[in-house]
Amino acid sequence: MGKPAAHPYTEKKHKRRLVFSGTVNFRADTVTLPNGKRSTREFVDHPGAVAVLPVLPDGRIIFVRQFRYPVGVATLEIPAGKLNSAADKPLARVKAELKEETGYTAASIKPLLSYWPTPAFSTEVLHVFTATGLRGGKPEPDEDEFLTLETIPFEKAWRMVLTGRIRDSKTVIALQAWKIKLLEKK
Amino acid sequence: MGKPAAHPYTEKKHKRRLVFSGTVNFRADTVTLPNGKRSTREFVDHPGAVAVLPVLPDGRIIFVRQFRYPVGVATLEIPAGKLNSAADKPLARVKAELKEETGYTAASIKPLLSYWPTPAFSTEVLHVFTATGLRGGKPEPDEDEFLTLETIPFEKAWRMVLTGRIRDSKTVIALQAWKIKLLEKK
Repeated sequence: MGKPAAHPYTEKKHKRRLVFSGTVNFRADTVTLPNGKRSTREFVDHPGAVAVLPVLPDGRIIFVRQFRYPVGVATLEIPAGKLNSAADKPLARVKAELKEETGYTAASIKPLLSYWPTPAFSTEVLHVFTATGLRGGKPEPDEDEFLTLETIPFEKAWRMVLTGRIRDSKTVIALQAWKIKLLEKK
Repeated sequence: MGKPAAHPYTEKKHKRRLVFSGTVNFRADTVTLPNGKRSTREFVDHPGAVAVLPVLPDGRIIFVRQFRYPVGVATLEIPAGKLNSAADKPLARVKAELKEETGYTAASIKPLLSYWPTPAFSTEVLHVFTATGLRGGKPEPDEDEFLTLETIPFEKAWRMVLTGRIRDSKTVIALQAWKIKLLEKK
């Protein structure tokens, strides 16, 4: 994680407090600030997640559209899924999610980058991969997981980023990274 | 927001439930799934936020380092702040945050893109801007806000993205967008 040396502004845990336990956990810990005062840090305690940019041989990208209740929209995103625990291996999980959500298996899966979607109020680390050498099959979504696949040429997807029709962080980050690769090849 | 027509997989709110109220609110709503079953959607009810990539005339970028308790690290991020309410104007807020956190005012502030950091479990929309024509002054951080400024040449910051030393989503997205602008100018 490239963790630096202890920072002078480090906040120390005073008291852990779990305020809600569900698919994700919500915590509101009491912390000691650098000036000795107490404050509360409210955040989602998240096991981490994986996502994958599946690139077909002709350059099209495979997306998943699904309803996201918090934002009230059926969003276009790259396939992704939560890790089951801290012990869950990202590479194994990403292969499983790709297969479940799209039906595809990949000859090559490579790490692109890992990032924190919201380090101010979530512990989540999201590991993004690229998948190439794709071979199609039958999707096996979880029960009660409603999604549709959309296969879109890269340049069209890129315009959707620029015009705000793709707004999900992992999808924006993966498409930006792919755009940079294409520009650097020129 | 480029909101599409109602999707066949739309989930409908059955019952709103606030499980924790603080700096951000945690909700666990009961929803009706497309197949008529009930499920729970747990998420952070967030007013939205702004962030800004401040680019100095010589191409260096101004960052803020601050301790982020959920990830346990003093992260390097671009200046940012939460909207106070849904009525708070992003452009006014971003000018205020830039001034408070860095002391700088900008001759030009332009929208770069808006995105959802985590649409699966937060309502947050984050509006990212670029600031140029910067003029320095004295930072005015909030009381109990501990941060240090770091001014870094773009290419060095870019290597920090590639090596995982910059991992915050708004910072990664803004630097990738700037990298793309630089590559397209070549």
